[in-house]
Amino acid sequence: MPTTTAVRELPHPAPEEIRLETVLHALSDPIRLRIATALGAHGEGDGAGAACSQVELPVSASTATHHFRVLREAGVIKQCYRGTAKISCLRRADLEARFPGLLDAVLRAAAS
Amino acid sequence: MPTTTAVRELPHPAPEEIRLETVLHALSDPIRLRIATALGAHGEGDGAGAACSQVELPVSASTATHHFRVLREAGVIKQCYRGTAKISCLRRADLEARFPGLLDAVLRAAAS
Repeated sequence: MPTTTAVRELPHPAPEEIRLETVLHALSDPIRLRIATALGAHGEGDGAGAACSQVELPVSASTATHHFRVLREAGVIKQCYRGTAKISCLRRADLEARFPGLLDAVLRAAAS
Repeated sequence: MPTTTAVRELPHPAPEEIRLETVLHALSDPIRLRIATALGAHGEGDGAGAACSQVELPVSASTATHHFRVLREAGVIKQCYRGTAKISCLRRADLEARFPGLLDAVLRAAAS
């Protein structure tokens, strides 16, 4: 009997479904802004990204999970499982294609 | 007996008090985004700006007033009385100095 491997895929909006208001709202929280800034330093694509636990936040694990989810559902970050770790990275290319200059302007402002 | 003229000044954050999270939150609402876009077409400075009633919105006058206030308190717009009319305009220069490229990126994204 074949073994079934459960592939846990998390829901993400398609690039064309990413909405400006939702992205701005996702980034309007200081904790989520801090997550985006931290992930901005971790690169994008295969092998890049960071586990939630690698982003230092002054909130409980469940609150952090909530904030990561808001960012994912808004289309700001991509989350996938690598082994048992949930890895997150910014959707830089998707956001840049959809809203040119926006993410960079926000990350620059957050860093200043 | 001298006449006292009541000068009605509305509270605005000083440029250095404008916070990124608050600006992003103010712009994360479709009605407020529409107001910002409309005011973007009305210029800035003396004689520029638009009365609230000049910005067509699918909400009641009191709801519109609320949204203008959120934008003002966030530092996105300036509101002043000209006669009996409350005139609003974007704080383009203040926002650009504080968060370079941000407002333009948001307005461009909203227009696309």
